[in-house]
This record gives sequence, C-alpha cells and structure tokens, in this order.
Amino acid sequence: MADKMVSGASSPGARVRVGVVGASGYSGLELLRILAAHPQVELTLAAASHSEARPLPEVYPHLTGLPALALEVYSADACAERCDAVFVALPSGSSGAVAAELWARGLTVIDLSGDLRLPAALYERWYGKPAAPAEAQAAAVYGLTEWNREQVRAARLIANPGCYPTASLLALLPAVRAGLVRPGGTVVIDAKSGVSGAGRSTAAHLMFAEMAENFLPYKVGKHQHVPEIEQMLGEDAGPIVFTTQLLPTVRGIYASCYVPLADGVDEARVRDAYLARYEGEPFVRVLPPGEVPALKHVRGANMCQLGLVVDERTRTLMVFSAIDNLVKGAAGQAVQNFNVIFGFPEETALTAAALAP
Amino acid sequence: MADKMVSGASSPGARVRVGVVGASGYSGLELLRILAAHPQVELTLAAASHSEARPLPEVYPHLTGLPALALEVYSADACAERCDAVFVALPSGSSGAVAAELWARGLTVIDLSGDLRLPAALYERWYGKPAAPAEAQAAAVYGLTEWNREQVRAARLIANPGCYPTASLLALLPAVRAGLVRPGGTVVIDAKSGVSGAGRSTAAHLMFAEMAENFLPYKVGKHQHVPEIEQMLGEDAGPIVFTTQLLPTVRGIYASCYVPLADGVDEARVRDAYLARYEGEPFVRVLPPGEVPALKHVRGANMCQLGLVVDERTRTLMVFSAIDNLVKGAAGQAVQNFNVIFGFPEETALTAAALAP
Amino acid sequence: MADKMVSGASSPGARVRVGVVGASGYSGLELLRILAAHPQVELTLAAASHSEARPLPEVYPHLTGLPALALEVYSADACAERCDAVFVALPSGSSGAVAAELWARGLTVIDLSGDLRLPAALYERWYGKPAAPAEAQAAAVYGLTEWNREQVRAARLIANPGCYPTASLLALLPAVRAGLVRPGGTVVIDAKSGVSGAGRSTAAHLMFAEMAENFLPYKVGKHQHVPEIEQMLGEDAGPIVFTTQLLPTVRGIYASCYVPLADGVDEARVRDAYLARYEGEPFVRVLPPGEVPALKHVRGANMCQLGLVVDERTRTLMVFSAIDNLVKGAAGQAVQNFNVIFGFPEETALTAAALAP
Amino acid sequence: MADKMVSGASSPGARVRVGVVGASGYSGLELLRILAAHPQVELTLAAASHSEARPLPEVYPHLTGLPALALEVYSADACAERCDAVFVALPSGSSGAVAAELWARGLTVIDLSGDLRLPAALYERWYGKPAAPAEAQAAAVYGLTEWNREQVRAARLIANPGCYPTASLLALLPAVRAGLVRPGGTVVIDAKSGVSGAGRSTAAHLMFAEMAENFLPYKVGKHQHVPEIEQMLGEDAGPIVFTTQLLPTVRGIYASCYVPLADGVDEARVRDAYLARYEGEPFVRVLPPGEVPALKHVRGANMCQLGLVVDERTRTLMVFSAIDNLVKGAAGQAVQNFNVIFGFPEETALTAAALAP
Repeated sequence: MADKMVSGASSPGARVRVGVVGASGYSGLELLRILAAHPQVELTLAAASHSEARPLPEVYPHLTGLPALALEVYSADACAERCDAVFVALPSGSSGAVAAELWARGLTVIDLSGDLRLPAALYERWYGKPAAPAEAQAAAVYGLTEWNREQVRAARLIANPGCYPTASLLALLPAVRAGLVRPGGTVVIDAKSGVSGAGRSTAAHLMFAEMAENFLPYKVGKHQHVPEIEQMLGEDAGPIVFTTQLLPTVRGIYASCYVPLADGVDEARVRDAYLARYEGEPFVRVLPPGEVPALKHVRGANMCQLGLVVDERTRTLMVFSAIDNLVKGAAGQAVQNFNVIFGFPEETALTAAALAP
Repeated sequence: MADKMVSGASSPGARVRVGVVGASGYSGLELLRILAAHPQVELTLAAASHSEARPLPEVYPHLTGLPALALEVYSADACAERCDAVFVALPSGSSGAVAAELWARGLTVIDLSGDLRLPAALYERWYGKPAAPAEAQAAAVYGLTEWNREQVRAARLIANPGCYPTASLLALLPAVRAGLVRPGGTVVIDAKSGVSGAGRSTAAHLMFAEMAENFLPYKVGKHQHVPEIEQMLGEDAGPIVFTTQLLPTVRGIYASCYVPLADGVDEARVRDAYLARYEGEPFVRVLPPGEVPALKHVRGANMCQLGLVVDERTRTLMVFSAIDNLVKGAAGQAVQNFNVIFGFPEETALTAAALAP
Repeated sequence: MADKMVSGASSPGARVRVGVVGASGYSGLELLRILAAHPQVELTLAAASHSEARPLPEVYPHLTGLPALALEVYSADACAERCDAVFVALPSGSSGAVAAELWARGLTVIDLSGDLRLPAALYERWYGKPAAPAEAQAAAVYGLTEWNREQVRAARLIANPGCYPTASLLALLPAVRAGLVRPGGTVVIDAKSGVSGAGRSTAAHLMFAEMAENFLPYKVGKHQHVPEIEQMLGEDAGPIVFTTQLLPTVRGIYASCYVPLADGVDEARVRDAYLARYEGEPFVRVLPPGEVPALKHVRGANMCQLGLVVDERTRTLMVFSAIDNLVKGAAGQAVQNFNVIFGFPEETALTAAALAP
Repeated sequence: MADKMVSGASSPGARVRVGVVGASGYSGLELLRILAAHPQVELTLAAASHSEARPLPEVYPHLTGLPALALEVYSADACAERCDAVFVALPSGSSGAVAAELWARGLTVIDLSGDLRLPAALYERWYGKPAAPAEAQAAAVYGLTEWNREQVRAARLIANPGCYPTASLLALLPAVRAGLVRPGGTVVIDAKSGVSGAGRSTAAHLMFAEMAENFLPYKVGKHQHVPEIEQMLGEDAGPIVFTTQLLPTVRGIYASCYVPLADGVDEARVRDAYLARYEGEPFVRVLPPGEVPALKHVRGANMCQLGLVVDERTRTLMVFSAIDNLVKGAAGQAVQNFNVIFGFPEETALTAAALAP
C-alpha cells in the first residue's frame, strides 16, 4: 500500500494516473465516462486491441468533454510508464493475462473480466478457455465491495464481480449467511439482463429489429456466472438454478430470487437481517415493506435496490434485485473498489441517483 | 347445440351473427380485428360502456376496412335480437353478470374475464369482488382448448382462460398429468407480461416514459391468476410460487417455469410426454432440444411455443412458454373456442405465424 | 397474359405456383408469411444465397404453420420448372439480373429491389453499381398500384416500388398532378424509417443497444430513393429535399412532406383533390380534417394513411404519410400487384387493418 | 446583483440556498437530481401543488442519496425565508405568476415555463391563457445562455427557454445572424420529441402500449413554441414552418432544419459561421463534415450537438440538432443560467458527456 499512498491520499492535490485497457467496449467506455469526472484521477491512457488516430470524443461522440486521449494498442510498458492504476476490461480469455502482467509490474489493477474470479479448474470447465496465471488468480481479491471491503482495501489486484453475480449475491448473501435458507432447498434465480451485457460486438439476435418487443432466455443452465455465484454463496446454499434472459432494454440486471425459507423464519426476521447487513451502505438500498425495485430506478447509478417479499403459502422468500449492469455491475463497482484501495471517499465520482425517466 | 348448428355449420353460406361486448378494450378491439376476417362470421354489434357516433374505423384508425359499426351502449335486448353468439370482454366484476344474462337468453357466450373461472368463494377471496351468478359459473366450461376441447364443443358458455394461466398451464400440464413432478416439490412460475395486459385505461406507471427501459414486478404473491392455475393443475402440484412482472413490450406473456423433477425422470421422458400430448395441435408447438421460445415469435399469432430444458445439477425441469396475451391469451383463444363450438375448422381466422420482426 | 389466365383466374380451384427468391431477408420472410395465407397460391420454392436443410418453420420459428419448404440455393431452372410466378427480393445489384433472367424464361416476375426502377445512367449514379439488363428495365412496370394499375395488369415484370417512394409518392402525387404546388417551390420530405428497412444483416449502429432511445439521419442528401421519387413526380415538382432518418421502431415509414402551395389553393381544394383521387382505394386512406396518421396504425397492414394540414401562415401544405415498410412498402404491395396481374380480388391475403397496439 | 454576491461567490464556502417549485414534474425531478450534486448549492425546499409526508428518495426511488426533504405545498413565505434562489417549474399558466411573486420579494428566480417568454398578446394568442404580470415578463431575460450570456449574468429573473426552441435556435441562429438565409425563403423545422416532453400527467396516447413502435405529429401548425422561435430569430427569418412529432423515446429533441441558402453561400462559409460562433462553448458542439448527431449521444448531458449538410441540388442547408429535452432543454440549461448568475464555473454540476448506450 505504501506506493499507492504516495500517489494517492498522502499528497493532497496529486492525482492518481489511471489507464483503461479495453477502452472501446461498453464497460471501458463507461469507465472513461466515470473516471473523467473523478477529481483525484488523471486519465493518462486508453488502450484497446486497435488504435484510433482521432481523440476519444471524436470517435465516441457521447464522450464530449473528455480528455483528448487517443485509443492506442495495449502495451505493458506504456501502462507501467504512464499509470499508477489500470482498469482492464478486455474480453474473458485475454483480460486476466493482461491484468496479471500489469500487476506483476507493480501497478494496482482492477480486472473487470471473469478471468480472475474462479480457480483454474472451475474456470476452464465453465468458460471453456485456458485459465489465467495461477499466481494472479490466487492474489486477486473478489471485489464485491459490500462483502469484501477490508480485503479490497489491502489489495493491489481486484477481480471485479460479474453483473449477474453482483445482483444475485447482494440479494442472497444476507439470507444465506444468516441461516434463513431451508437446508436442502434449491434457490432459483430467474435473472434478466439488458442487451448491453452482451457487449459491443454485432450479433444477429441483438439487432434492434430482433430484440425490440422481444424476450428470450440464453445459455440456459450453462452460464459461466453459475460457479461465481455458488462459490461466494458457499456450502450453505447448494447448487442453484440460474437462468439468464434477455430483456428489451439497453441497461440493467434484474434478478428475481426464490429462496425456500428455513422453519420458523418470518418476514420480520428476514427484513431485520437485510437491514442490519446493509445499514450505512451508500450503494445498496433495501426498500420498505410492500415495495419492489424498478429496473429504471437504478439506471446510470452505482446502486443495488432490493425488495423483500415472503410468500407464506409456499414458505418462499422472494428477493428482487436491480442494478445497472454497466455501473454497479461493472465500471461503477470497479471505481468503488478503486476508491476503497486509494483511500478516497467511496462515493467519489459515483452517484446513487439514477437518470430517470 | 341444435340452434347453433342451424346458424352455423349446417347451412352452408349462412354466417353466425356475432357481437362483441366490451369492444373498446384491447381484447375487444383484437376480437373485432380477428372476427372481421372470419368468413363465417357477420359482425353485427359492438358494445361498450359508452357509445360513439362515428363508426369503428374512424374511432380506431388501425381498424381500417372493418364494417362501419358504431359502438353502442350494451343492451341485452339488442344482443338477443341481433346476435347468435356474443364475446364478452368487460372488466372483471361486470363481465360475468353480462355473460350470464346473455347465456340465460339462449345465446352462445364466450366470456374473456375472470368472472366465471373460479368458484364463488375462491373468486371473492382473490378478486375482492362479489362473484358472478352461481348457475352461470357452474355451467361455464373452462376454455383451455387443448385440454378441454370436448367440453368446449358441447358448451354454450365459456370461461375463456386468463393470459398468464394459458401460458403457464400449457407449459405445466403435461408434466403434472404425467407424474413428472417431485411429490412435495414447489413449482415456481416466474412470469412476465407486456403492458397491454393491463388494458387501455391510463395509469401513471404504464406511461411510455415510465415503462421504456424498465422492468418490475407487481401484485407479488397476490395475483388473481394463482387460484386459476392451481385449480387446473390439481392436487398433484400443490401451491405454486407465481410472480407477475411487467416487460417493456406491448404484447406477450413469457412464463419461465421451474419444476422439481420426480426421481428417475430424465429429459427424454419429459420430451416424450410433451410431444405426445401436443402432437397435431395447430396452436401449441414444442421446440426441438436446445431451443427456447422468443417472445416475438408468437406476436399476433394464436400460438404457444414451449422450450424444455432439464438441469441435472439441480434436478429441475425448466419449461419456457411464450404466447401473445391478446391472441392465444385472450381474443384468439376465444375465437378458437368459438370455432370448436360452431364446428368450423379450428384454424379459421387464426394464424399460427407471427408478425415478426 | 394468356398463360397467366390459364394458371390463374380461368381455372377455378387451380392455384398459381409461386416462388420467393431472396426468401431469407425481411422482405422475403414477409412474402412467405403473406403468400402462405393466399388461397390461390401454392408456395413451391424458397431460394436464397445459401441453403438450409431444415424446413422454414424450423429455421424461422415465427413462421409456424408454413409449408415445410426448405431454403435452397437459387437456380433459374428450378424456378422455371416449379413456378408460374416468382417474387425476387434480393439485394440491389443482384436482384435485377435474377428477375430479368426469370422474366426472359417466361415467368411472371415481381422484383422488390431498386434494380429495375431507374434508367441505367440514373441507377449507376445513385446506386454506384452496374445497372440491370436494359431490356428488362425497359419492360418493367413501376408497381405503384394505385397510380399504375392498368399497366400493372398487363405486365409480366414488375419493379416494385421502394418503401420511401411508396410513402412519399402516395402523399405527393395528388398535389403534384392537380397543380397545387407553387411553381419553383421546393418540396421537402422529412422521412423516417424503422430499422427493418436496413435488412437482416448485422451492423453496429443497428444493434438494440445503439438504436433504443435513439434517432439519427443517414445518407443525408444521397439516398438512392431520391431519383425514384423525382422520376415519378415528374417535371412539375423539380428537385426535392429528401432526408432519411432512423426511428427506434422495427417497422414503418413516416414521411412528413412540406409542399409550397400555389396561389389561390386552399385547404378545401387540397382535400378534394386527395379524396377524389383515392376514393374507392382499399389501401390508401385520407384521414378526416384535423387528424394525422400514427405509425402504429398501419403496422402489419397493406395500408397508407394520409393526413392533410394547410398552414396559411407560410402557405405550406403538409402531408403526413404512414406505411409499414415491409407490407405496403414491400411484400404487401408486391402481392397487391400479383393479385392485379392474375385477376384475383386485390385484397386477397392482404389486410387493411393493423396489428395494434 | 449585490445580494447575490453575498450569498454566492463572495463568501467562499457559503452555499446558495436553493428551492425548487414544481418539484414533482419531470423537469422538477431533474432539477433536484442535478442540484443535489452541485457543490455550491444547499437544497432547502421542494414544493409542489401537493405535499408528501415521506422524504423525496422514498417517493421517488431513483433519487436515492438526495437530501431527505419532503415535498411541501408552495408558499411564497417559505421560499423567501429559506431560499436565495428558486427554480419554478410549474405548468404554463401558473408558473409565471409564482415566479413573478418570488422575484418581487427579491429572490433570484429561474422560470422553466413558457409564461415569461412572450409579450402578453402573443402569449395569450398561442397559449390561450391569461398572460403573467407584465412587469415580470418585461424584466425577464430569455435564458438561451450561449446567445444571451451577458444579459443572464445581470439578471435576477430568467425565462428559461423551451426545449424545442433551444434545439431549433442553437441550430438556426448562426445562419440567420450571418445572413446565410435566402431572403423570402421559408425555413422548415421538422422537430421530434421524446415523450417526457409531455410531462408526468397520464394521457391515453402516451401509454407505453400506444407509443411503443409508434410515431406521430401533434399540434400541427399550432405549437406554442412557434412564436418563441420566431421572436428570437427576428425579422431576417420570416414565419417558419414548425412541426412537432412524438418519438418512441423517453428523452430528446431532434430538430431537422431546412434553410434555403442565400446566393453564393457555400458549405465552407456555413461551417465557418457555426464554428466561429460556438468556439469555446462547452455545451454546443458542431460535428465534423459528414457527421450528424445521434439523439442518444446527448442523453443526460447538457449538450447540443449540431450537424451541417449543404444540399447543392436544392440549395438547402440542413442543420440537425439534438438535445436532451430535460437537460439542455430544461433543467440543465436552468442550472447553467444559475451558474452564470452566481458566478460559478458554468460547467458546475453539468456534464457534456452522455449516458450511452
């Protein structure tokens, strides 16, 4: 942490030099947007698999007002020279190796891919790709901030959580950790995602003409976020049923979670467990009784809203969880972790209020 | 049936005189659109709670080409005089009484509301309104055509199924009736609906500015379609978890159903049960292994598409079911029942193909 | 016409054998959907640039109920052998040559591309591609049914109009032909299109994540439909300002036309000209004073709705014109022409009513 | 200005006490969202026509993190007591009177309605309502910041421009003021708006089921923004053709403007005029040759993007202009004016970058 303190909190006015690798994807662009408004950050590098002669605001007209950086091809040397911290938002399969390389050179690294979140065997089974370097995977701290804040604070390498796991784990962990789940019962997570979760590459089924007025599941029973969720839920929860479905929205993850309740647990005890766990958290909000989150109420915000309903007829706890996949599910949570690591107020450059309507 | 045969199949060329009561709602308008293209139907009456001086195509410009009927205020006498059969698509609470009245006067009646689907006690508990006349409720046949075709054929009063129950029951009945559900296991139905399911009356949360890019549950654990589904599933299924959620689409019901599998049941046996049950059905289609329905592939069609996936990790059968709420979930199924009753080919005026993209 | 009469109107019960070439595009799929419901049509062939082993309803799940044809690679011999009439809906640049080839072999051909609509020089300037065979271009009748019905009736080769020209010409021709346009005045057409107009191929700017909540012009001042519109408007109108813009809808063309009014022309005279011209037309509707069309009121319909407003402050006639680009702007109008050619009632298999909401 | 300096720039650290009247509408909510992030603002009051016991973030869940103010019924005394500056965002017809009242009591007032933008006679003709007090109307400065910055700086009462006029005037003023418009030529503005422009009150035609996949004009030739635009364009432009149309988007104004070019004016001269005029402006951006704005690239941003195209065939300049109606078209520009008045950097609390995709 000593190095970080030098460039970060200890010298007032000095700014952390930050790079984004994988800057041309949706998560990368969102990182640029958020980081450009961060008063303690100096954006010094934006890298991708290709370069662009024109500065960012020319290539991406929505990024008007950003520094006139140009996209460059990734180079570890350039990062080491010009950055204190780097966000890596490359596709799974290549992101972890880059993150490991930069971490090995002493940089603080936050990796937004799935590459550092799972042990090698599990990774290779669910992703069908070679795992990232084991040393880096072992060193990486899983950056679900609200549940790992102390480890994050001490970390120099972060495996930033996936969007589905963020929504699901924030919804389920209080119940699981408080022993509210019926032993042997199966938790069902019916999850829905806006299409930006699939990234910026073109795909026939993601065209506007196909997705407008549409809804459909994909990767049923095979989504690579299953082991990430199960690993964090731990032994108390058992294997989960997890369904991923495409919503005709651009942003957002909505997880409808069905939890068989342990004997004797009532709604009051459930609500107490959640309120106690998330009290004081700026970016998780447990809604009052009778209210459930609306996806749009978290758009553009680094926020997870949770609604709790107990169905006594079937002894089922339903937890409804909404996030913006590109913010709390990716770039926002990454900056939240960055703030924790560098000792900045956790809310810096992040907003809990959404752009609605 | 004698009377019906006279006006229907027995005299070639003669057409059934048909009225629509509740013609100004979404289901009523859809009935008008479908019936206007029915070669054996003469549209003779369109009634609502208010009258309109101008003919239908003037008031509803999308109904260009329809007969120049004008909306009139409902009157049982007018119906009795000018109609052989009447579709009643009024709001729950008033629809059943009108249907009962017309049925008592000897007309063939298809009621699209929830009023005749449940015994009085159950109705009053879930709808919070006084039940329709008991005699009519007892006489009404539940018009889930594929499961009640013979009763429908003999009926003169139909309780046309709700949109959610249609999607859910077509998805679940083959498994339940074939004994594939684990005894004591809880079936979860995570259902989503386009906003037209809420009808044409204005509501703040259904404005475009609110629903675009949005998704949210409503009536969690309290939806009046719960008893309708449970009643038809029968004792073998037990109480269900049933969640209703609003999609940012206009049309469509998508039901994602999670069924705990009985011991020893594998995917092949599941698939056989569904294929056997729906073989030859023009309006239910079981998709091949590995495929799941897309909501848009049933838009405008009188069609239920089903996808089957068995998750061995959790011993769960997932059934994905898609319909157009206004067609197979309302007006289309109503006309399907009408065709059965009057002895017309069941496909008359109905299409299995969807308007896509 | 003799041959056509044999296979068409003259032998009751006999059906025209019809093929669709370019069946895998949006217009081609829409042709299949419409033609499958045509009682005088036997769909015998569906060709594309690639073949598919599985039948159409398997590959395109929304086409449930269609004949189990399989997509085959285009062959003129197969068409000549198995078809009386062929719809060609290939991309511009290849469609015209195929249409010419089949026409030369004696088939009745309706080409939906732009290839046969313009003289060679004009075509090559605006399309930037080599023109189709001159003989075929000369023989082709421009299939704007309401304005060329008699030529269409006698034709064996149809250049089916583009979607923008259909909406624009039906909006402007009554004013131009009746001399209502101020001499030397410039007509402005501000046109908007749903994204299905761009076809089924993937493109980054047409992804749902990009187009949702978006609106933008494209090909400003360069759209290849400019000469098609100007050619049909004729000398009386002069060069037009024509802007094409993408709407976040799947279907639809909306043309807002601004016409400088000649001296002395008032709203009554304008209205009379339009009503007189379109009286009795089943697929063009002039709305009453004070009403303007809504795009959704023509979705799925073979219909053009027109609204007329005269702005006295600026002496401008505004004509608002709405069609479904895939129906009246492509497949529907093509079938309308087919009906005219073969002597079937013009409304056969076509609907003037829209799927709304 | 003396008073303002006391509460504003002169005492470092002191914050301006700000109230929002009309806080429950879309513009009001957007004001709250923006002002809550303003480091020199203390939100002290949120008023509406009704009160709410619960604090703002409870009533409006997207406003998580905002101060726990509760909506109260408007009272001039409360405003005078607790505010230095007040934003008034009430409906036209009542907003101006409230603004005038608060201004008369010495507060700095920014009125977002149309009530103070026009002389009484013009107002009453186009709005059909009694005009606001003449003294206030006369004192109010039209807050199109880029064109009236110096007057704004000296003002204590601002008539904040309408959304359509902002997009249209920023697009047209450089051409008009530089004499590029052909004398006697008619300027056509084909404008489109997202539905949030119609406000939060429910309306049948603004329901999601009606507006999705739709597009339609409204108030054709009668929109009350016509005189606001003409008044600012001045004598050089003459009466304009101005069409307002509803887009199926939530936010955004897109104005496609058609300007007859004066003799001898070419694209280079046009471009020079625009670039010279807007050089250094943080919230107006003239795109490079060949580029046109996309509506989504300004969503959530206080930004107007302009695209310039000259069509030599018709000697027409097309200017395409995109803004977010709730930001640069309402709340954002209001805060921009507030910043100018109080001497804060103009960008404070405002972003030029958009939330995209």
